Amino acid sequence: MKQALIKDLYRNTESYIDQKVQLSGWIRTIRDSKTFGFIELNDGSFFKGVQIVFDEQLENFKDIAKLPISSSIKVVGDFIHTPKAKQPFEIKATDIFVEGTSNVDYPLQKKKHSFEYLRTIAHLRPRTNTFSAVFRVRSLASYAIHKFFQDQGFVYVHSPIITGSDTEGAGEMFRVTALDMDNLPKNEEGKTDLSKDFFNKETNLTVSGQLSAEAFALAFRNVYTFGPTFRAENSNTARHAAEFWMIEPELAFAELPDIMDLAEEMVKYVIGFVLEQAPEEMNFFNSFIEKGLLERLNNAHTANFGRVTYTEAIEMLKESGETFAYPVEWGLDLQTEHERYLCEKVFKRPVFVTDYPKEIKAFYMRLNEDNKTVAATDLLVPGIGELIGGSQREEREDILAGKINELGMTEEDYWWYLELRKYGGTKHSGYGLGFERLIMYLTGMSNIRDVIPFPRTTGNAEF
Amino acid sequence: MKQALIKDLYRNTESYIDQKVQLSGWIRTIRDSKTFGFIELNDGSFFKGVQIVFDEQLENFKDIAKLPISSSIKVVGDFIHTPKAKQPFEIKATDIFVEGTSNVDYPLQKKKHSFEYLRTIAHLRPRTNTFSAVFRVRSLASYAIHKFFQDQGFVYVHSPIITGSDTEGAGEMFRVTALDMDNLPKNEEGKTDLSKDFFNKETNLTVSGQLSAEAFALAFRNVYTFGPTFRAENSNTARHAAEFWMIEPELAFAELPDIMDLAEEMVKYVIGFVLEQAPEEMNFFNSFIEKGLLERLNNAHTANFGRVTYTEAIEMLKESGETFAYPVEWGLDLQTEHERYLCEKVFKRPVFVTDYPKEIKAFYMRLNEDNKTVAATDLLVPGIGELIGGSQREEREDILAGKINELGMTEEDYWWYLELRKYGGTKHSGYGLGFERLIMYLTGMSNIRDVIPFPRTTGNAEF
Repeated sequence: MKQALIKDLYRNTESYIDQKVQLSGWIRTIRDSKTFGFIELNDGSFFKGVQIVFDEQLENFKDIAKLPISSSIKVVGDFIHTPKAKQPFEIKATDIFVEGTSNVDYPLQKKKHSFEYLRTIAHLRPRTNTFSAVFRVRSLASYAIHKFFQDQGFVYVHSPIITGSDTEGAGEMFRVTALDMDNLPKNEEGKTDLSKDFFNKETNLTVSGQLSAEAFALAFRNVYTFGPTFRAENSNTARHAAEFWMIEPELAFAELPDIMDLAEEMVKYVIGFVLEQAPEEMNFFNSFIEKGLLERLNNAHTANFGRVTYTEAIEMLKESGETFAYPVEWGLDLQTEHERYLCEKVFKRPVFVTDYPKEIKAFYMRLNEDNKTVAATDLLVPGIGELIGGSQREEREDILAGKINELGMTEEDYWWYLELRKYGGTKHSGYGLGFERLIMYLTGMSNIRDVIPFPRTTGNAEF
Repeated sequence: MKQALIKDLYRNTESYIDQKVQLSGWIRTIRDSKTFGFIELNDGSFFKGVQIVFDEQLENFKDIAKLPISSSIKVVGDFIHTPKAKQPFEIKATDIFVEGTSNVDYPLQKKKHSFEYLRTIAHLRPRTNTFSAVFRVRSLASYAIHKFFQDQGFVYVHSPIITGSDTEGAGEMFRVTALDMDNLPKNEEGKTDLSKDFFNKETNLTVSGQLSAEAFALAFRNVYTFGPTFRAENSNTARHAAEFWMIEPELAFAELPDIMDLAEEMVKYVIGFVLEQAPEEMNFFNSFIEKGLLERLNNAHTANFGRVTYTEAIEMLKESGETFAYPVEWGLDLQTEHERYLCEKVFKRPVFVTDYPKEIKAFYMRLNEDNKTVAATDLLVPGIGELIGGSQREEREDILAGKINELGMTEEDYWWYLELRKYGGTKHSGYGLGFERLIMYLTGMSNIRDVIPFPRTTGNAEF
C-alpha cells in the first residue's frame, strides 16, 4: 500500500474509491465522543485536509483521542466516497500510529490570531490557512515566472549578490565585510583599511541585477534574473522590506513597446497560472482576505492594459478635481495615491505610464528625442500602484558617458557597462518586477511582511 | 515579416524554405572578396550562428564589408535551403542595416583566449562558444531543478539571505551591516554597538537555507530552496567560491533512503533535461572541454547509483592497495581523492556513502542506533567527488538539545528550531546540492569561476 497525498485524493478521487489508503500528516482539529472521533488531517500537500473517522476498534483509541492538535500521525484506513456529503470523501481508520505528539501549549490554537502575532512565530505560521495559501501561491508564482521565460528561450542569469558597484547610483546599501568589526584594520588616513577585507575593497549587497543582465542580453539576446536584492532604507512601512526578490528581464534588439508587451503578457500568464493551479487558495483569499480579489484579477487577465504618457497622466490628474495629499506637477514623481487613482479610477485596469521626465529617472534610461523625457515605463495596477518599472536603456555610449559625468558618478566605475555600448551595442530594454509586490497583488495581502517566509525589515532579522 | 530567431531557423527549418526572413544579431566572423562576402551571424538564441551571404547589390556593400566583428546588424534576406552543404541553410541578404558598430580593439578576436584572461572580461565572455554553452546549460539546469520539484508538488521556499543564525554552527560568515565602517558606534565595553545597526544585532549572510526549509517542510511536507549562499573562507581553489547557489529539498515523513531515491531521480532528470534541450552545447563540451563527458553522463543517467556505508567504504579504501595523500582511517573524513577513487575506480558510477561517524558531521543529523554514526549521506560522482550532502534530521527534541549543548552552542539561539520538534515533529530528511558543482559535473568545466556569471572569490568582486 503506497503512501497517498491528500492532494491526490482530491484530484484523483475516482481511483481511490473503496481502496485502502495510508496517509501521514498533522492533526488540525480533533474531537471525540465516548466511542468514536473525528480528526481533520492536513498533510501539507493540499490546502484542504481530509476527515479521519476513528472508533473504539482501534486498540489505542483513547490515546489517539487525547492527542493535542498539530501532533503528527500515520493513518491506515478505508477511503469512503461520500459524494452527497459536504466533504466528498472521508477515511475510516483501521490503524493510527503516532509519529510525534505535540504540546498543549501549541501556539496555534483554534482561535484567530493577528498577523502581527503570527509574525513572531514565523516558523509555525505556514501551518495556518492564510500562510499556507500565501506561500503556496508564492511558490507557484515563482515557477510561473520561470516557465514563462524559459518557454520562450530566455536565459536565466544568476546576477551577483555581493557587488562592488551601485546600479542605481543612489541606493542605500548594506555593507558586506569579513573584517572583525571590533578590531578594524586602519590605513594611514585612519579609515578602515578595506584592502585587508575579503575582496580587498568595499563590497555591498546588490540593489539590482540589471547591469549584469544587460551584459548577458548582449550575448544571449533575451535573458532574465530572479534573485534577492537589498535596500538598507529605514522605511518602516507595509510595503518595504530590506530583503526582497526581483525579476529583471532584459532584451536586446527591443524598444520600450516590446517590453510593455512582454510585461503585460507575463502578468497575465502568472495570474492565469495561479488561478488554475491554486483555485482553493485563491477562493480563500477572495473570501477572507480581499473581497473582489478574483474579479480584480480576472479583469486584469482579460483586459488590454492601458497605455498613457506621463505628460498625459499629469493632465488627467490635474483635471480630475480630486484632492491629493502630494502635489501634481509636471516634473514631480507620481506618488502611490496618483498611481492608484490612474489605474483604479481612470483606467479601471492596469496601465503603463511612459516617458517620464529625465530628472526623476535613473541614469541608464534612454533619452527621448524631446531631450526632456526618457523611454521609461511604470506599470500601475489597482490595489498596489507601481508593480513594474522598466525602460529602454541608453545604448549611445557618448550620451551615457555624459550622463554618468553629469551626475557626478565615475566613468571608471562603469568601464565594462560602457564597453557594452562600444562593442556592438544594440537597442535594448528591460524591466524590474518586485516579486513581493506581485504576491501582494495576487493574494490581497496588505503587508509585505506577510508574503515573505522570514521577512527582514528595520530592526527585525529573527529566525 | 516577423523577426525570426536563429534557433527557430534550426528547429523549424522546413517552414522557412524560400521565405523572406528578418534577423538581428552580432557578427561573429566576416570575410569578403571584391564583389561578395560572408557573415557568420549569431543572435544569442542558439549555440550556432547562420551564414549570411551578401554582395554588391547591397547599396552599402562596402560599409558592411568593413564592419569589425561583434558589430550588431539587422539582416533582411532570402532563406536558402542547402541540405547537401555543411550548413543546412544560409541567408542571401537583400538588406543589411547597421545597429551598432564595434571597435577594432574588440578583445574577443578570433584567436583562442585562456579562461584566465576571459575572467577579466566577464561582461564579454558569454559571447564566446564556451561561455555561451556554459551559461545556457546553467539556465536550463536551473529550470530542470524547478520543474523536477514543482511537477511533484514541492513548495519552493525563499529562505532568508540575511540571517542572525549560523546553520552549520561552524561557518566562516560575511557580516552584513549598515553602520558607517569609518565611524562605528561603540558600547560601554568599547565594542561595536550592534544595537545601533539596521537590525539592532549582528547579522550575516546565510550559509544554508536548511533550517528555514525544515520549518516549511513541517507545514508543506515537501519543500525546496534554491538560492545564493555564502562562505567567507579564504580558499583560493578551483572548487571554492564565496558566493554560490544551493538547492536544498526537505521532506517530512521521510527517512534517509527516501532522499537518496529523490536525489538519484533528480540528478538523472537534470542530466536528461540538458542532454535533450542543449544537444549542441553538450556535444561542444564533449569535443572541446572533456572528452568522454557524454559517456560519463549517459552512464550516470542509466546506472543504478551505488550505495555503501562509510564503514564499508573505509574498508574498500584500505584494501585497495592505493597510495593516498591523506590517511584512511575510520573516524576521519573522506577527502576528494578517496571520494573519486570510490566512484571512479570501485563503483564506476555515482555512489551514495551513508552513515558517517557523528563526530565529523553536523549537529542536526540523526543519531543512529549504534550511537556512533549518523543517518547522513554524501553522493559521490566521477570527475567531481561530493556532489550532494544530506541527512535524516534529528527529530528527537531531547537528543537534539543535548547535541546543541554538547557542542557549546546555545539552546536559545535555536528556540524555534527546537520548537519544530516539540509541536508535532516528524521524521524528516533533506539534502543540499551545490549548484555550481552540478554545472561543473554537467559541462566538464574544471574551475568554479568559469560556471558563475560574475564569480566572487578571495580578492575578487569585479563587475
